[in-house]
Amino acid sequence: MTPIDDLYAIVPAGGAGTRLWPLSRRSRPKFLLDVLGTGRTLLQGTLDRLLPLTGPDRVVVVTGTAHAAAVAEQLPEVGVANLVAEPSPRDSMAAIGLAAAILERRHGSVLVASFAADHVVPDVEGFHTAVRHAAVAARAGYVTTIGITPTAPSTAFGYIRSGAPLEPTEGGPTARAVVEFVEKPDAETAAGYLASGDVAWNAGMFVARTDVLLGHLERLQPPLAAGLREIAAAWDTAEREEVLGRVWPTLTRIAIDHAIAEPVAATGGVAVVPGAFTWDDVGDWASLATLVSPDGDGVRRVSAGGASPVVAIDAPGAFVSADRPVAVVGLRDAVVVLTPDALLVTDAAHAQQVKAVVDELLARDRSDLV
Amino acid sequence: MTPIDDLYAIVPAGGAGTRLWPLSRRSRPKFLLDVLGTGRTLLQGTLDRLLPLTGPDRVVVVTGTAHAAAVAEQLPEVGVANLVAEPSPRDSMAAIGLAAAILERRHGSVLVASFAADHVVPDVEGFHTAVRHAAVAARAGYVTTIGITPTAPSTAFGYIRSGAPLEPTEGGPTARAVVEFVEKPDAETAAGYLASGDVAWNAGMFVARTDVLLGHLERLQPPLAAGLREIAAAWDTAEREEVLGRVWPTLTRIAIDHAIAEPVAATGGVAVVPGAFTWDDVGDWASLATLVSPDGDGVRRVSAGGASPVVAIDAPGAFVSADRPVAVVGLRDAVVVLTPDALLVTDAAHAQQVKAVVDELLARDRSDLV
Repeated sequence: MTPIDDLYAIVPAGGAGTRLWPLSRRSRPKFLLDVLGTGRTLLQGTLDRLLPLTGPDRVVVVTGTAHAAAVAEQLPEVGVANLVAEPSPRDSMAAIGLAAAILERRHGSVLVASFAADHVVPDVEGFHTAVRHAAVAARAGYVTTIGITPTAPSTAFGYIRSGAPLEPTEGGPTARAVVEFVEKPDAETAAGYLASGDVAWNAGMFVARTDVLLGHLERLQPPLAAGLREIAAAWDTAEREEVLGRVWPTLTRIAIDHAIAEPVAATGGVAVVPGAFTWDDVGDWASLATLVSPDGDGVRRVSAGGASPVVAIDAPGAFVSADRPVAVVGLRDAVVVLTPDALLVTDAAHAQQVKAVVDELLARDRSDLV
Repeated sequence: MTPIDDLYAIVPAGGAGTRLWPLSRRSRPKFLLDVLGTGRTLLQGTLDRLLPLTGPDRVVVVTGTAHAAAVAEQLPEVGVANLVAEPSPRDSMAAIGLAAAILERRHGSVLVASFAADHVVPDVEGFHTAVRHAAVAARAGYVTTIGITPTAPSTAFGYIRSGAPLEPTEGGPTARAVVEFVEKPDAETAAGYLASGDVAWNAGMFVARTDVLLGHLERLQPPLAAGLREIAAAWDTAEREEVLGRVWPTLTRIAIDHAIAEPVAATGGVAVVPGAFTWDDVGDWASLATLVSPDGDGVRRVSAGGASPVVAIDAPGAFVSADRPVAVVGLRDAVVVLTPDALLVTDAAHAQQVKAVVDELLARDRSDLV
């Protein structure tokens, strides 16, 4: 396949993934981990997915200074000029906005497409198709999102509600206007969404022209836009550290959803194209378990020591990640994760509560374990 | 306290304890393990309990040749003359009968008291009192058992049904005749037993004069009695190995319950004295968990690395044995046992099914793990 000539990918690599404790830690966040045991980390998988669309020179990764070295090591294809290290977390608008502003200064107005570093997309071909479609709508001036076709009434994801089809554009499918973005619903609301048929999961994937994106930002968040442009102007100069150190801490902390997607959608400026591919944000162990194919005996496992037996007695749906033999007896949808310094035992229904383990360890002054 | 002058203790140390996998293994059976993390193995705990009654010279331990070295190492107080190694397992009647026959040859008719090597008796004083009472009835000619006062309608133990009080004997309480021994009942039957008030748990504790015990055996199992006497006659001579190798494999495999306790009870020759002390056969992890006091947060733990935190979120009744931090989330009465080469995850309600793990590992040709 051929790359999309005017497309640059932005990969904000942040977030701790505390619900994947004990595998994920503050020092080894989710995106740096090979959570599926495929031999590639989530970050590397993200790059693998993007390279056919952009080539190696058009992917920019934004991460915290604490993880910059690890990111560089995991992504030798990405040049140092395309690794943007944030001095401190200022949320996704600052991260994506800075990358967009740097790219615009370097290349003029281009298309930027932003994808989280810690999601899983098994259907790479479907993903590529959706990005190509999104690029068409983005070139036409829309902030364009990819709405994942829901396969279940999930309460773990936000939703995108779409409205009327937009004017057909050459080479693209009929994109639709986004009516609204809605937060994670309760189960009943989610079931209603699914029945209505005009909703999609919000995977946080945005494609836009830099002039469109930064134009919206200038209008909606003027101080943030000005700060980002000031840093971007200094980025490829000797002034970078000075300006970054002075301006970055002053930037507004806001997510791109709240800064741009929601207000721009309200005035008809956001389009959505269908993403008919399998996708997951690997939000917890239950989510991860669904991405792993079961063995012949129904056990789902991720393990470096794959030869170790897992014996499940009266224990359907067990998920096991461990470096030694494991027996699960009498538990349904058990989740067992053993690391060299900790062990988690839970079940799929309680996977979201793993965050409370991290909170409790911090309360016990055991930050060494989180 | 003063020892009981004419009492010799016999400790048959056998059985695998497969329900305590992965801690117990064929090479490290339950009696050799410090399952409670007290610093003493169950075998050592058994000896500790018996020494005040007998002194170190009057305890005989009978075990398989495979475990003889480990037993000797764990019990330096027990002289080599009092370690009886069986060439192969021939069940409890042969083990106890051989020890009794050896003791009778050495010392004439004495009292022998038999106690399993892998039980737990937290209330040592109550145990001593019961043995003293049993010794009185045994001297009077009864095969005497100690019936544990039940604290719950357990289906995990056999029961002893008692009848009329026997003639009071000097220094002893009123012992009762045993009407019958009954196998592990179902829950309804167990509840009925408890309500009737004339039952006790059968802990397999027997006290008898050697002439009484071996006399019953001669009458009820003549070939077995003859074989044991032949081996005992050769035991402290140069002929031991020759006679043992020739005769032992021919001995009838039978439990002392079936060989003596049940038939002798039927003719009024068995007495029971009350054992009003806490006792457990540590039959599975659920049983073991009840013997461990919970932490402040309700977690019961056994661990060499006792300083490792255990975080229980929405997980009442968790039992944990592990050398590293463990989090249990959303499971009730969870049982988590981590050893250097295996991990078990189950709950108290399924603890009996752990035996199936061992069976499955053997079926998968992984005898190295059992």
